[in-house]
Amino acid sequence: MARILVLYNPPANPAAFDKYYHEIHVPLAKRIPKLRSYVVSTAPPTLLAGSPIHLVADLTFDSMAEFNAALASPEGQATAADVANFADAGAAILIFEEAAV
Amino acid sequence: MARILVLYNPPANPAAFDKYYHEIHVPLAKRIPKLRSYVVSTAPPTLLAGSPIHLVADLTFDSMAEFNAALASPEGQATAADVANFADAGAAILIFEEAAV
Repeated sequence: MARILVLYNPPANPAAFDKYYHEIHVPLAKRIPKLRSYVVSTAPPTLLAGSPIHLVADLTFDSMAEFNAALASPEGQATAADVANFADAGAAILIFEEAAV
Repeated sequence: MARILVLYNPPANPAAFDKYYHEIHVPLAKRIPKLRSYVVSTAPPTLLAGSPIHLVADLTFDSMAEFNAALASPEGQATAADVANFADAGAAILIFEEAAV
């Protein structure tokens, strides 16, 4: 399984961020081909360590090859380009293969 | 679903970290009651943005109540205390409820 994890830093206007994220960005991202699952945090995470994060988004694909093809698709490119429209405080974006332990 | 996401910063000795993590920490964590899933990155994530992370661990529980009980259990406390034994470069630890979008 290939996963992309997006950790959004706290935005200047959380309400505007949330509205844009759910009304514009989620529908865009859900059009990405071969997207297997898409889950997000329902409220800002509690931290046991580290810097505040406003929202966590977690998208999975069956393989890294499918992820790469998805990112290169028009829908993937549109979704990636849209991040700059609302993530004014930046985000960490991590891509990795995962395995159960 | 309640999730705990642990993002380990790059350790001084990655090989020693990985050995300790998989041989000592994973078996400890797998004893936590009501742990629903436990997956980890199989190699350091590729970054599209943000600071380097050595390993991502993702543990899920059916609810925040079950997560809180799990963390308070002897197995949960032992697992949490063990992090200081190998995470010399620190980690971000985020706890949140998630939902599919």
